[in-house]
Amino acid sequence: MKISIIGTGRVGSSTAFALINAAVADEIVLYDLNKEMAEGEALDLLHATTFHKRMIIRAGEYSDIEGSDIVLITAGAAQKPGETRLDLTIKNAKIIKGISENIKKYAPNTLIINITNPVDVMSYVVWKVTGFESNRVIGTGTILDTARLRALIGKNCGVSPMSVHAYIIGEHGDSELAAWSSAMIGGVPIKGFCRNCPYKDNCNKDLSKIFDDVKNSAYTIISKKGATNYGIASATTALVESIIKNEGRVYTPSVLLDDVYIGYPAVINKDGVERTIDITLNDEETEKFESSKSIIKEYLESIKNLL
Amino acid sequence: MKISIIGTGRVGSSTAFALINAAVADEIVLYDLNKEMAEGEALDLLHATTFHKRMIIRAGEYSDIEGSDIVLITAGAAQKPGETRLDLTIKNAKIIKGISENIKKYAPNTLIINITNPVDVMSYVVWKVTGFESNRVIGTGTILDTARLRALIGKNCGVSPMSVHAYIIGEHGDSELAAWSSAMIGGVPIKGFCRNCPYKDNCNKDLSKIFDDVKNSAYTIISKKGATNYGIASATTALVESIIKNEGRVYTPSVLLDDVYIGYPAVINKDGVERTIDITLNDEETEKFESSKSIIKEYLESIKNLL
Amino acid sequence: MKISIIGTGRVGSSTAFALINAAVADEIVLYDLNKEMAEGEALDLLHATTFHKRMIIRAGEYSDIEGSDIVLITAGAAQKPGETRLDLTIKNAKIIKGISENIKKYAPNTLIINITNPVDVMSYVVWKVTGFESNRVIGTGTILDTARLRALIGKNCGVSPMSVHAYIIGEHGDSELAAWSSAMIGGVPIKGFCRNCPYKDNCNKDLSKIFDDVKNSAYTIISKKGATNYGIASATTALVESIIKNEGRVYTPSVLLDDVYIGYPAVINKDGVERTIDITLNDEETEKFESSKSIIKEYLESIKNLL
Amino acid sequence: MKISIIGTGRVGSSTAFALINAAVADEIVLYDLNKEMAEGEALDLLHATTFHKRMIIRAGEYSDIEGSDIVLITAGAAQKPGETRLDLTIKNAKIIKGISENIKKYAPNTLIINITNPVDVMSYVVWKVTGFESNRVIGTGTILDTARLRALIGKNCGVSPMSVHAYIIGEHGDSELAAWSSAMIGGVPIKGFCRNCPYKDNCNKDLSKIFDDVKNSAYTIISKKGATNYGIASATTALVESIIKNEGRVYTPSVLLDDVYIGYPAVINKDGVERTIDITLNDEETEKFESSKSIIKEYLESIKNLL
Repeated sequence: MKISIIGTGRVGSSTAFALINAAVADEIVLYDLNKEMAEGEALDLLHATTFHKRMIIRAGEYSDIEGSDIVLITAGAAQKPGETRLDLTIKNAKIIKGISENIKKYAPNTLIINITNPVDVMSYVVWKVTGFESNRVIGTGTILDTARLRALIGKNCGVSPMSVHAYIIGEHGDSELAAWSSAMIGGVPIKGFCRNCPYKDNCNKDLSKIFDDVKNSAYTIISKKGATNYGIASATTALVESIIKNEGRVYTPSVLLDDVYIGYPAVINKDGVERTIDITLNDEETEKFESSKSIIKEYLESIKNLL
Repeated sequence: MKISIIGTGRVGSSTAFALINAAVADEIVLYDLNKEMAEGEALDLLHATTFHKRMIIRAGEYSDIEGSDIVLITAGAAQKPGETRLDLTIKNAKIIKGISENIKKYAPNTLIINITNPVDVMSYVVWKVTGFESNRVIGTGTILDTARLRALIGKNCGVSPMSVHAYIIGEHGDSELAAWSSAMIGGVPIKGFCRNCPYKDNCNKDLSKIFDDVKNSAYTIISKKGATNYGIASATTALVESIIKNEGRVYTPSVLLDDVYIGYPAVINKDGVERTIDITLNDEETEKFESSKSIIKEYLESIKNLL
Repeated sequence: MKISIIGTGRVGSSTAFALINAAVADEIVLYDLNKEMAEGEALDLLHATTFHKRMIIRAGEYSDIEGSDIVLITAGAAQKPGETRLDLTIKNAKIIKGISENIKKYAPNTLIINITNPVDVMSYVVWKVTGFESNRVIGTGTILDTARLRALIGKNCGVSPMSVHAYIIGEHGDSELAAWSSAMIGGVPIKGFCRNCPYKDNCNKDLSKIFDDVKNSAYTIISKKGATNYGIASATTALVESIIKNEGRVYTPSVLLDDVYIGYPAVINKDGVERTIDITLNDEETEKFESSKSIIKEYLESIKNLL
Repeated sequence: MKISIIGTGRVGSSTAFALINAAVADEIVLYDLNKEMAEGEALDLLHATTFHKRMIIRAGEYSDIEGSDIVLITAGAAQKPGETRLDLTIKNAKIIKGISENIKKYAPNTLIINITNPVDVMSYVVWKVTGFESNRVIGTGTILDTARLRALIGKNCGVSPMSVHAYIIGEHGDSELAAWSSAMIGGVPIKGFCRNCPYKDNCNKDLSKIFDDVKNSAYTIISKKGATNYGIASATTALVESIIKNEGRVYTPSVLLDDVYIGYPAVINKDGVERTIDITLNDEETEKFESSKSIIKEYLESIKNLL
């Protein structure tokens, strides 16, 4: 299993480190415009592998991504404090276009996972420029948001996040929404779950507070440490594992839907996006989801000339 | 973490082996009426630990279970070909009574997981004889049946069993039922899931066939190899892990409900059964569940004089 | 990764269970003359997989081993109480011959790990009958004995078995020997290690007692529980992992040396036995090793007509 | 298991991330003078935990380290390009002194692992200022250097690093040395190993080149990416695991020896440094080791007024 990572800033190098800890790859190639940095990261990470599975990890040129099973794109300008995710659009679309052309040239059979923000728009760019089948181009979408939502519900309700089924869907950004109407704990609609709950007089009944906390957490982290990297590194590694192990798990990656890329539940296996899953939304949720889709479409319009 | 296992036949020794492979215990004590056998298993298993985490594993007397965090009961006559699970009742209730008295004496603060069949009736015996709080006495119930159901649905529908939420509840035996009305895949009711499914013209639409397969599989295994041990060993190990790691995962153990022990969804954490979860059943399912409860009650009646 | 197991008695089924727990295979095929038993084990083990990695496990015919990466041979009569390992020779050589012919026919490119006792003689039979390169035919040899020795030294001296380097070599049986002259703890000859040891007034200085304990432990287990299975299952799984992950670890499998198969240190990687390692033996050890070799040769002589 | 990390720069946060990936802690507290940064890292890392074991991770004050099992010190100025490790001495000793006083006050029973460079000198400062028993104060010493050496030997000789026993000892810095005279592969002195080696005409026979590569690698990484973090994070995590799991593995941490802290083989278990192991050095190695000790002593002299 060969994985290449384009962009070795904090997200790229932390993701490489998470992949090493998860022992899922045999070879990792790091590419960055700043070749010195890529080389430094490769050597530091090579030292880390001495405590884990033996693997090859090295810095390389675009030509070294040849034969990759998965290429991860993390390059691009990072979201700055005060900047919205969509502000980055124009700046990053050009960068992603160049990267996509190189992936198409050197690794025409690879799966691609795009992490660069705004992730929905950039994933669309990758898909258009490479011309790959849409199942082979995946954005990290709202996977991390969904994981965070489940963790907070689990904490609030005293159960394992693994027994919580709830999704955050839509744009990975300000217009995302929690699909509360289909949220479940242990196979029971979330409201019904409260009946037997010993914590019911002592919990955060206003679930919208939990959602706000999820939505704002990226901004909070960026304002405090300047960037996010560990959470997204773990989310990407989970996605990679579901592909490599052909798990068929359901995540909310950014996938092609009505000619946009947007966060939505999908089954992930060795072929990438095996299919999306139609969850039932109530009227309010449907409206929010369509509105989120429109926002992404607007931004796609703004970079139309590049595609 | 100290775990004691009462009964070192195939189920007991395979469970000890699974616990070693999962590296969750620091000390395992094996007790069996046949002390030679317990010693032989302990020595064989000790060799296995050389390829895993260092731990103590040894055969002992009842007094050696002192200080156990969890005691597993696997002793008792096994189900023979042609024998129903409930036929074993009288034979095993006396054995379990004696064991329970010894656990109460030597490990008064332990959690107990009972695996001996008929598991619902025997778990009730353990609870009554020890006088422990009901959260500390857990039967393996329909955990394995539920896992098997999810695996078969996952296979049928091309998703990870981890993304399937469906329960088998009731007596671990002929009267158990699948709670189809609340079954979900990826947060979507199981019927709705089929809409987007690429396999929909090519799958087993008759879900009741899947259930029959689950229900009969123990009989099939017993008729072919004389006993079941590996599946139940893995199920028990999963339950132990949810306790030790305080995971709060939802399983379908045998738990106290309306003065019977019966398979039902419950949150499992460091205290054992943290609470049950009221799933919504339709009328047919409710009737079947009540009928299953009555069957267990009848058998409890038949051993009333022992309690 | 496809693994086939010939023989689904206690060793075969426990090894399959260990492989499932280690999550190293994608497909396991079980073959046994008693097809019912193989089917029962496959179904029981399939249930176990629901708590681990998804994989295919099924009973099959010889033709189903086609495409195997590794075939494990565990078939044959087991060692009975009072019986020496070499007593089994004639009885098992015929069985192994037939199995080898089928492996040659259906899986001509596979690696073979032979576990059937007397393991050194039977591994030689497999090698001769298949005509495979010797690196592709491996016996479990003294791997388990060596692991056990390290565990006991570790316990005696208060260190991790991972920091102990000591080998048991020769016939897996009565004539095996511990290569004490090259034994090391933490890179220090074992005698020198004692200087700083806080336990030195309180340990088993007579290392030969540790060796006796190792050598006799199989007999002890057999006399107590009738067979050994868990220790050898873990040893075999460790060997399989070193092959699958191309680890290059040093074990003491039974390998071809001077036209016998015998337990000796060897580097194990994706090609099987990558090479043997010449350890330095003192005169006494050399004599014992040559004597062990002669014993195996005698037994090979006794089945010469079959080869 | 509660672990506190003092200093949440790249080393501190990467180590927290590695601990999360290894799932060894129940609670992690992050402390930094820059409280905002600690809070940002804690929130980002909390997101990462949603894909792993549930645990508590939070930023805190010094008082929040109360009850820690292990405190990791990573605070202090980092080594800059062109700066030797010992140049940092004066600058960091004052910082470490203040930290040590707080650890003594709030977590008087904890183990301490110091990572801050120059690691040998700073570990001595921690020991002196806290007044803890020396087994409870451990520096990361040459653990990473040793791991790297084994990896490179393994690569050069085609074996698993787990089958290589070779140490780098002395100051973690320019005066460190490889103890070649006791280096082993698979229990065989490294020179003897070459006899049977299929790669012998094709390998780097000049082992001193391998050592130079190890010694210079930190400088190389710093010159390329400005700092090292992933390798040391993995090394520290391995050390933590050996403590938590009471493994008794042999590493080369910085330990108290002749009134200096210096990298030397030691058995690490739940009590920290259980004992050192006297390896045999030849005359040249002894001289180099004594010289390395003297260098550390000089630097200790230069900060004597602080202790």
